[in-house]
Amino acid sequence: MTIKAYGAHAGDQPLEAMDITRRAPGAQDVQIDIAFCGVCHSDIHQVRAEWAGTLFPCVPGHEIVGYVSAVGDAVSGFKPGDLVGVGCIVDSCRHCADCAEGLENYCDGMVPTYNGPSADAPGHTLGGYAEQIVVDERYVLRIRHPEAQLAAVAPLLCAGITTWSPLRHWQVGPGHKVGIVGIGGLGHMGIKLANALGAQVVAFTTSESKREAAKALGAHEVVVSRNPDEMAAHAGSLDFILNTVAAPHDLDAFITLLKRDGTMALVGAPATPHPSPGVFNLILKRRSLAGSLIGGIPETQEMLDFCAEHGIVADIEMIRADEINTAYERMMQGDVKYRFVIDNASLTSAGTL
Amino acid sequence: MTIKAYGAHAGDQPLEAMDITRRAPGAQDVQIDIAFCGVCHSDIHQVRAEWAGTLFPCVPGHEIVGYVSAVGDAVSGFKPGDLVGVGCIVDSCRHCADCAEGLENYCDGMVPTYNGPSADAPGHTLGGYAEQIVVDERYVLRIRHPEAQLAAVAPLLCAGITTWSPLRHWQVGPGHKVGIVGIGGLGHMGIKLANALGAQVVAFTTSESKREAAKALGAHEVVVSRNPDEMAAHAGSLDFILNTVAAPHDLDAFITLLKRDGTMALVGAPATPHPSPGVFNLILKRRSLAGSLIGGIPETQEMLDFCAEHGIVADIEMIRADEINTAYERMMQGDVKYRFVIDNASLTSAGTL
Repeated sequence: MTIKAYGAHAGDQPLEAMDITRRAPGAQDVQIDIAFCGVCHSDIHQVRAEWAGTLFPCVPGHEIVGYVSAVGDAVSGFKPGDLVGVGCIVDSCRHCADCAEGLENYCDGMVPTYNGPSADAPGHTLGGYAEQIVVDERYVLRIRHPEAQLAAVAPLLCAGITTWSPLRHWQVGPGHKVGIVGIGGLGHMGIKLANALGAQVVAFTTSESKREAAKALGAHEVVVSRNPDEMAAHAGSLDFILNTVAAPHDLDAFITLLKRDGTMALVGAPATPHPSPGVFNLILKRRSLAGSLIGGIPETQEMLDFCAEHGIVADIEMIRADEINTAYERMMQGDVKYRFVIDNASLTSAGTL
Repeated sequence: MTIKAYGAHAGDQPLEAMDITRRAPGAQDVQIDIAFCGVCHSDIHQVRAEWAGTLFPCVPGHEIVGYVSAVGDAVSGFKPGDLVGVGCIVDSCRHCADCAEGLENYCDGMVPTYNGPSADAPGHTLGGYAEQIVVDERYVLRIRHPEAQLAAVAPLLCAGITTWSPLRHWQVGPGHKVGIVGIGGLGHMGIKLANALGAQVVAFTTSESKREAAKALGAHEVVVSRNPDEMAAHAGSLDFILNTVAAPHDLDAFITLLKRDGTMALVGAPATPHPSPGVFNLILKRRSLAGSLIGGIPETQEMLDFCAEHGIVADIEMIRADEINTAYERMMQGDVKYRFVIDNASLTSAGTL
């Protein structure tokens, strides 16, 4: 089946309307009419071939929400009309220890929603900047939010789970003081989720201008990290830090804010290395520097259900598909509060330009 | 009381015989006639003023074993003649959460055995390169090894506990595959202890010549880390790595050997930074890079008792006090298997040189 999509033919070309094909639903497949797709920073890195291994044509997008339009014979969990989501993962090996534990995100055979290996044309997966997607039901999430919130649910599929998974893995909750570094697409979700999990939330930003916005998102305290006195006031006091900043920066400034046995988890990877963190800061309080990658399918469903129950969605700015290149430029300037979401209905008209 | 010791008057001077004083035992104090004192790399760094803050005269030494020669009126746990040890800690605040948990090593008020604040002359603590030491009984360890092993027990008080504490904290035991990086004073103890705890032990060394020695210490496998094929054979397979190497080196080469959720704990701090570790290697398998600092008093006793039960001591080379400057030079060349221990009986004659 041929559908309309938006993508790029090379790393140095802008995104444009294109036709792609999707497979007919197999026995285990769910066919989804995509209503909205969030725009993630990794979309930019990959479609511009800034990371190794981008395959073209590249159709980005892994924050997908929509309606089931058809299901295969063996599908038991979904029916046409259901509100569903697809995140960063559309397949995995299904038999390793990671898959058995529901941590498909760490499976060596994990297939990303775009730019992953695929038997379908053109030989690699194509993402959510498209009218439709066909995904095995094992990797389809149920959305229990009100339909009116659907667009703002989309970013939960990556920004939400990427912050939820480490918050849960390091057992953030009541009685914990938690730092969220960076108030962008990921960070603004981190603040909302850590707050809803019952933690005392300290948001860290380089911008004085973001102070009030961070409080509105749910931060109990906001620290402008360029101010040494504000930073020093939190030395040795944080149980956990979720660091969402991908730009190279001084990790020690945050590591030293951790208590004994505290962990700072990085969820952003810089294109060039961070300055090397000081070993003494790790040794003197048995602190840890860790990383975390999106999240598994069961915990993504857990996160979506938690957000539905607590009325949590992303703060978004809706765009048309043909505004994506401009949106990318604005994202590079940090000019978005806090996530662009494509209205995929715009793909039909965009295709006629 | 004036006693003989060995120390330095300045960072650029060799160690020499000197007279120092010790306080008369207070009510809670244990006076110890020092039989042997191990020689730690940090002794060199501090007495040579390579780290900030060395106070002179400096008498190093924090791997102290000997006999109780007197006790204060309120001492309940020790009596003259008892075989005892003193490690890196001679006091702490005694009321913080760290002290309450027996992790005096992380107390902000921890007083190191030498170069720490003291009411005694000369205003800072003086260590175990001395005939005698007087220590509050809270910080004195009981030694249950046979008396004949006493000299080889000395290094357990720092090299032993520094490796034991992280192995226990990260719950190394049967069914775990554990890496020990570096086969020196700390690493050789790490191999022995991890083996005795029931783990599968892989030792990593840069020297082909250490392969057989590492096996003799208890390593089940030995990897020469300069050999990429040998390293690759262990990719993604280790539950935990204890890295004892203080020289700057490529941490990623070891981090990539960890399984999902694995941790590499650093116990050595380089004088100049390690190359910055790659964030993707942490993110892709939710790995952690951590640090660990010696250990607390209760776990030091636990380690000593475990070692007595399992017949574990350090491999040592005994020296006279007046051989210490030569021993330092040999340590800088890595020429010791695996720990120098001073025979403190030699201090009397050394003092007459």
